[in-house]
Amino acid sequence: MPDKVPVGILGATGLVGQVFASFLSEHPWFELTYLGASKKSEGKKYGDALRGSPPLPIKEDILEMKVENVENVPKDVKILFSALPSNVALEYELKYVKKGYVIISNASPLRLEDDIPLVNPEVNLEHLELINIQKKRRKWKGLLVKNPNCTTAILTLTLKPILDRFGIKRVLVTTMQGLSGAGYPGVSALDIIDNIVPYIKDEEYKVENETLKILGILINGKIQKAPLKVSATCTRVPVLHGHLESIYVETVKDVNLEDIISAFKEFRGRPQELKLPSAPSRPIVVREEEDRPQPRLDRLVERGLSVVVGRIRKDYALNGIKYLALGHNLVRGAAGIAVLIAEALLRLEYL
Amino acid sequence: MPDKVPVGILGATGLVGQVFASFLSEHPWFELTYLGASKKSEGKKYGDALRGSPPLPIKEDILEMKVENVENVPKDVKILFSALPSNVALEYELKYVKKGYVIISNASPLRLEDDIPLVNPEVNLEHLELINIQKKRRKWKGLLVKNPNCTTAILTLTLKPILDRFGIKRVLVTTMQGLSGAGYPGVSALDIIDNIVPYIKDEEYKVENETLKILGILINGKIQKAPLKVSATCTRVPVLHGHLESIYVETVKDVNLEDIISAFKEFRGRPQELKLPSAPSRPIVVREEEDRPQPRLDRLVERGLSVVVGRIRKDYALNGIKYLALGHNLVRGAAGIAVLIAEALLRLEYL
Amino acid sequence: MPDKVPVGILGATGLVGQVFASFLSEHPWFELTYLGASKKSEGKKYGDALRGSPPLPIKEDILEMKVENVENVPKDVKILFSALPSNVALEYELKYVKKGYVIISNASPLRLEDDIPLVNPEVNLEHLELINIQKKRRKWKGLLVKNPNCTTAILTLTLKPILDRFGIKRVLVTTMQGLSGAGYPGVSALDIIDNIVPYIKDEEYKVENETLKILGILINGKIQKAPLKVSATCTRVPVLHGHLESIYVETVKDVNLEDIISAFKEFRGRPQELKLPSAPSRPIVVREEEDRPQPRLDRLVERGLSVVVGRIRKDYALNGIKYLALGHNLVRGAAGIAVLIAEALLRLEYL
Amino acid sequence: MPDKVPVGILGATGLVGQVFASFLSEHPWFELTYLGASKKSEGKKYGDALRGSPPLPIKEDILEMKVENVENVPKDVKILFSALPSNVALEYELKYVKKGYVIISNASPLRLEDDIPLVNPEVNLEHLELINIQKKRRKWKGLLVKNPNCTTAILTLTLKPILDRFGIKRVLVTTMQGLSGAGYPGVSALDIIDNIVPYIKDEEYKVENETLKILGILINGKIQKAPLKVSATCTRVPVLHGHLESIYVETVKDVNLEDIISAFKEFRGRPQELKLPSAPSRPIVVREEEDRPQPRLDRLVERGLSVVVGRIRKDYALNGIKYLALGHNLVRGAAGIAVLIAEALLRLEYL
Repeated sequence: MPDKVPVGILGATGLVGQVFASFLSEHPWFELTYLGASKKSEGKKYGDALRGSPPLPIKEDILEMKVENVENVPKDVKILFSALPSNVALEYELKYVKKGYVIISNASPLRLEDDIPLVNPEVNLEHLELINIQKKRRKWKGLLVKNPNCTTAILTLTLKPILDRFGIKRVLVTTMQGLSGAGYPGVSALDIIDNIVPYIKDEEYKVENETLKILGILINGKIQKAPLKVSATCTRVPVLHGHLESIYVETVKDVNLEDIISAFKEFRGRPQELKLPSAPSRPIVVREEEDRPQPRLDRLVERGLSVVVGRIRKDYALNGIKYLALGHNLVRGAAGIAVLIAEALLRLEYL
Repeated sequence: MPDKVPVGILGATGLVGQVFASFLSEHPWFELTYLGASKKSEGKKYGDALRGSPPLPIKEDILEMKVENVENVPKDVKILFSALPSNVALEYELKYVKKGYVIISNASPLRLEDDIPLVNPEVNLEHLELINIQKKRRKWKGLLVKNPNCTTAILTLTLKPILDRFGIKRVLVTTMQGLSGAGYPGVSALDIIDNIVPYIKDEEYKVENETLKILGILINGKIQKAPLKVSATCTRVPVLHGHLESIYVETVKDVNLEDIISAFKEFRGRPQELKLPSAPSRPIVVREEEDRPQPRLDRLVERGLSVVVGRIRKDYALNGIKYLALGHNLVRGAAGIAVLIAEALLRLEYL
Repeated sequence: MPDKVPVGILGATGLVGQVFASFLSEHPWFELTYLGASKKSEGKKYGDALRGSPPLPIKEDILEMKVENVENVPKDVKILFSALPSNVALEYELKYVKKGYVIISNASPLRLEDDIPLVNPEVNLEHLELINIQKKRRKWKGLLVKNPNCTTAILTLTLKPILDRFGIKRVLVTTMQGLSGAGYPGVSALDIIDNIVPYIKDEEYKVENETLKILGILINGKIQKAPLKVSATCTRVPVLHGHLESIYVETVKDVNLEDIISAFKEFRGRPQELKLPSAPSRPIVVREEEDRPQPRLDRLVERGLSVVVGRIRKDYALNGIKYLALGHNLVRGAAGIAVLIAEALLRLEYL
Repeated sequence: MPDKVPVGILGATGLVGQVFASFLSEHPWFELTYLGASKKSEGKKYGDALRGSPPLPIKEDILEMKVENVENVPKDVKILFSALPSNVALEYELKYVKKGYVIISNASPLRLEDDIPLVNPEVNLEHLELINIQKKRRKWKGLLVKNPNCTTAILTLTLKPILDRFGIKRVLVTTMQGLSGAGYPGVSALDIIDNIVPYIKDEEYKVENETLKILGILINGKIQKAPLKVSATCTRVPVLHGHLESIYVETVKDVNLEDIISAFKEFRGRPQELKLPSAPSRPIVVREEEDRPQPRLDRLVERGLSVVVGRIRKDYALNGIKYLALGHNLVRGAAGIAVLIAEALLRLEYL
């Protein structure tokens, strides 16, 4: 295909960077031409710069590419996927967006800014319109879109069909988050074997605030936050990949179980309508067994882009429902949806 | 001590039975004289009848005792601690209570009966008065007291001081429960390594219903259930011992954090007042680090009889508080409080 | 393909049975028409009769098949793959071999019999000639071939090229075996989290004895055991799948490392020569990193049929070499090679 | 006790440092007066400078002590226990031994030097005589003694009684080493859950070489290495603490099992004769069950100072024996024996 769009990864050697490389290994629209990382990895073959085995398989020809310095993105790259750590992301992303690159970023800085779209594709793809505001206000040559925090991406995908059909007053969520969410080397084995650590820095704040923006409505170029309350408790568990969330939702209208189950099953978003190449056929997969979803068994459904939901029950304490949701933190929670966003930008002619 | 009360264990070889044996190894008031188990173990030395290592250390002389058949409890035994599996508990407990034994049982059958005290000692020791009703109505020669489900015991201990000072409207809990809660061999390693199983049979029903009885008030010989709503989601995690609970509480009165923290810290129950020998000095231990409680680090505080609470935060979604609580499922959740109940029965002259 | 050979599985619902089903899901020569299991599963859909998720994916149409009673194998089935537990295998295998079925069995009984081929395909496919002796002596209408114990299959595949080029005096092996080797539910999570169990019933005997038969030479219809000594120590570790073996070999001739590495890399067996459809292209894969092989990273190389070898070092204590080998216990160690044997039987016209 | 010897710890905040603090918390002969660490921890309360929970309990008053800078050891400290990381140990140890301190070090540099005693107390306490050579040659005001690498300490303790009674030609060992051997944070949970890493940097070299020195004989002020061959393969397993070793030994004389078992059981060393306060009553504990030793069940026998041995079998491949040994890497493998050495130095009047 002669006209594939050349794309690159900032922070290519980290776990999220590796999942970007996996998704871009054989992409029908994008050609991965740039792998940017810190000086330490510069000049190495990509495969040699990685520690351990990538979380998802990467094509041999990508593993043979040279890692380049994150300082020098070539001119012909159009889209940069950023998997940079939070503490350096802002600097590089601003530098490159000003130079004219399209940045789709997994890093947390600026996610809550008024004119930066924070997009979970099946939930609020229309927020991409903020790009017009962004262009006017920031005068960047390029554009910047953020994908949400991993836990939030999984949560909001399941909240969307509930919100649309029944309305939501309150959401109370307790998470059991996999280790790869903390990066590599991340959590020490001495801390987590035979244990749970009931704390993840800044995570609850992100879930509580990003959710309101993502579920908000864009009116006159401004996002009105969704009028609901969200409270989160986040824990780290001895599971390699996958975030499991125990979710309680108080609805505005009364729900019955059948309606909610079919709302989940039938849910499709704009990526499915637009037939984006990475769009999962079923964004939400409902399991009816009494003991699902389980991280090890369900995290790779539709390449990790679907969220698997189970144990949907009426909740009498809160007048709503309770259920469990499981998503792959590196895919639905990070690189997978950033690629979906890029596909949407291309299809919707933002590029 | 010439006048120690002779006691025995029904179901002595299971995990809960072993913790009974540990607590009764050197008890100041009780002498363990009978270890009852199924025919399979009959006649073996107790130490040889156990598989693996006991969860808590058992004195050598107890390990040398002979296991006897659960069918034939000697006459001179006064108190029987029942760690029988649910499917056989009812039969044996009824048989022996009719014969005149005092039964303190960890098994679930009959827990919700009107005239069977369901006691978490620091929370509702006064429910032991139901024994009078029980005696009249059932005409048993002995008496039967139940301790709650493990998850419920941990939960209700922390709810009690909140209820007393602020009132409670709703409780929403998500649990991460250790493996020993499923007995031995219990959960297959193939099911739980790198995984979570978000389902424990009957557990949510027990938590939602036992809590209301335990927090209820005894009026005119009848328990009025506590007027609050409880909703539970229970999961099994790859942790050996200890149940971690993420708890959201909507209170009647507004709380401020300082008050709730001192309510937890200052909380003492009747076992502390009565100076029962097994009563933990602090039933609730508050940890102020941002990443506690953790199962492996906190499950043995005060020999496993205390519940460790942490991450106490105001909850704005529910107008109340949220926090995490950790208790040892085999001690605070089972054998430990049964021994406390026995001590109370003796001190309060029910025997 | 109109003339696929109809095949069946005895013990289809166990872990090895499930891997058979996976390998036979889309086999070019065989059509899976019979799934035999105990009465308990009879009549259920295969997918519903399985507990948990299969270790390797099984096609949807196989999961929809009805499970039949192990007592009644249909007449038109030609080959029966036996994954029966040892305690019942002998009875059924004898019953069906007498009736004329071709049995390829993963069960241990009869493995060391004089006239029963015990075959690790790349190592001793020529032992299939024992079938002629077997037919004469036993007068069975069918025929019976065994595949080795899982640990032995992995070990002997790596010993074969050493034996051929350098001769072997002694082999000392210590194994670290994955949990699925113990079947399901198998090992209790309470026994193995944060632990190792240094004992697997009968395993060391199997390794020490089966190895000598497999590496032996068939002369005049009799296998002469290989003239070497084998000693094994077998342990169970908290790993889901994959057996890791630390192997010390005293050779007859002096070895140099380059030779041994190329002996491993170049090794091909009869299945590769015969181009059997399931034959791995490289039976032995050599990793040159200092920290490989690792069970989680290497167990699925070539669908689990290859053995991955690493850390090949000269051994000065024993005048030979030492190395680590890793194989998938359910594939190279069980179902995978049984399917390879069946392919060889067909290709070599034993059927 | 007015005349306790004031002692200090270099590298007090690491895992080995914490075990030193635990052993010195209430020592009858030593008073812990100095906790030295890097600048980062200087001035903090010891308890606050530790991450996570210490591997063994430390008394409250020690946790309340201030951490001091490793640069400034007070003059009145007599003995310094060094738990410094290898890369800085040499510099500080030389600095302080020249100033006159008695250093007992767990760090690897200099372990193989001719005039530095490398001591596993029950095995070769007489090597302390090298101190006389050391004093003459080095002209240090203080003295320096090393304890062995953790794996070597466990191994050599079990080899000693075999060597004494039967002679040893060769030793082949495969280890399964716990995570705390790699320090904190050490091994990433992402690398080791559901996995084994068959490589530990420099470990095999240490085992193969230190063993020969420790088992050597001191003749005329020089250690003659033991005339035997040792070969090691070292792996890291998902176990918190405890190193399990699968050991094959070729003996000079024929052994029978009874003799070897009683050699293990009856073995006592100089620490037992000298009645050193930390000496375990049984340095080697023999378990006769078929599935012991196990790391989680056996690592704390005699406070972690004993080595637990099991599965002792004749080895016909090597004409000797094979068995498994388990020791606590931080105690028998590090801090515990360093404290034993200090006790011996005091008792034998080297101070």
